[in-house]
Amino acid sequence: MLTPSECDRLCVVLVATRNPLNIGAVARAMSNFGIRDLRVVRPWEAAFRDAKSAVGAAELLRNARECPDVAEAIADCGLVVGTSAGSRNRDTQHPIYRLEAGARLIRQSLQNRVAILFGSEKFGLSNDDLSYCNWLMHIPTREEHLSMNLGQAVAVSLYELVRDPGTPLEPCTRPETAPPTAAQTQVLIAKVLELLEAVDYRARHPRANIQQETRRLIRRMHLNARDTEGILGMLRQTLWKIGKETSDGSDR
Amino acid sequence: MLTPSECDRLCVVLVATRNPLNIGAVARAMSNFGIRDLRVVRPWEAAFRDAKSAVGAAELLRNARECPDVAEAIADCGLVVGTSAGSRNRDTQHPIYRLEAGARLIRQSLQNRVAILFGSEKFGLSNDDLSYCNWLMHIPTREEHLSMNLGQAVAVSLYELVRDPGTPLEPCTRPETAPPTAAQTQVLIAKVLELLEAVDYRARHPRANIQQETRRLIRRMHLNARDTEGILGMLRQTLWKIGKETSDGSDR
Repeated sequence: MLTPSECDRLCVVLVATRNPLNIGAVARAMSNFGIRDLRVVRPWEAAFRDAKSAVGAAELLRNARECPDVAEAIADCGLVVGTSAGSRNRDTQHPIYRLEAGARLIRQSLQNRVAILFGSEKFGLSNDDLSYCNWLMHIPTREEHLSMNLGQAVAVSLYELVRDPGTPLEPCTRPETAPPTAAQTQVLIAKVLELLEAVDYRARHPRANIQQETRRLIRRMHLNARDTEGILGMLRQTLWKIGKETSDGSDR
Repeated sequence: MLTPSECDRLCVVLVATRNPLNIGAVARAMSNFGIRDLRVVRPWEAAFRDAKSAVGAAELLRNARECPDVAEAIADCGLVVGTSAGSRNRDTQHPIYRLEAGARLIRQSLQNRVAILFGSEKFGLSNDDLSYCNWLMHIPTREEHLSMNLGQAVAVSLYELVRDPGTPLEPCTRPETAPPTAAQTQVLIAKVLELLEAVDYRARHPRANIQQETRRLIRRMHLNARDTEGILGMLRQTLWKIGKETSDGSDR
């Protein structure tokens, strides 16, 4: 997890992006994850600011810096990380880290500004672009289909940077429901037994411990107070119907 | 990290998706991360199979199942997880987990088939859709801009499921470069000192320990054998030029 000032020191640099929709998608993901500094090097379309898909990220796009080359885009950064499809080395002599490890290294470096470079949709980063990078990072995709969509690659990379490995295995929000009182549970168990009696369940399924088993069954359901009342209502209605039918002289 | 058979038990269910391009983007992310089972409930466009942006995911889209409702789409699943923008509870009485925790719960449940539901771009999952879900999961986005693009949300969710928290802090690929021998390093240090002498560096920067400092400087650079030779070449050329110029009678 990044602090707000660490978020402010992280820059996304898009190099030679071809599709303005992708620039928009990148801006949206950045906005989702609280990263605001976008720099765009030689975008294919001069009209990249028109990118439409950036719902809610208009300000971020308006503030994006257009740079003539990578050198200018990264000039104020202490660490420059390139992204690459796959973990195979080209002839660039760079160490390549899996995203999980790369993100940890970036988090440790955010006392200074850090740039993450993403190349064009078709060719990725050129060897010239890569020569500005301290090291490379790749998203662990399948060997048979390595290359990710640009907007998705940026979203996954930023998510990994802001994710919280210490997230407890607890829900953020629990339904607001009180447990039933013991008395309510007793009423429910009694009503179930009454129904079983009314439908001659015991005659067809002779069991020694029907009471105990019913009690355990109800406890295993971990009902809340509201649901306990709801089921009680259903049982009462059923018992009323049975009583009515049997008193109406049905042959049961 | 999921085993191949766990990957095969994970299904992505898109409910009432409006934009066929998004279905394509979802298919591409699934293919990137090795998840193949796509089910599509009431897609807005009947022609969803034409989705063009699914580079390399054509087979996955061809095999996608179109279902009339959520009940049919999830019938064979032991766990059904809904996705939600934000961690606020609607009135659905569901626990909501952050993605990091939700993914851990899903990984623990993959002895049976698990469905992850994603709602429409505009409205998300309806309360009726949610009533099929055991619990909900949300991606930790910024409070001010919670809602993610559908393709990006699926990519991030699947990435979290396949990511490996045990990734060592080592590069996957190291440049194939031998370290220099101690002898090579000595030659380099000697050549640097020779240059400093030739340019009268000591006269301008009088220091007690220029040799020792140079030796430490070179060690801190962690040069490999190839780069050591490369720098030696540069130094030799520089020394040659200086020697030539001075012997040519320049006034230095």
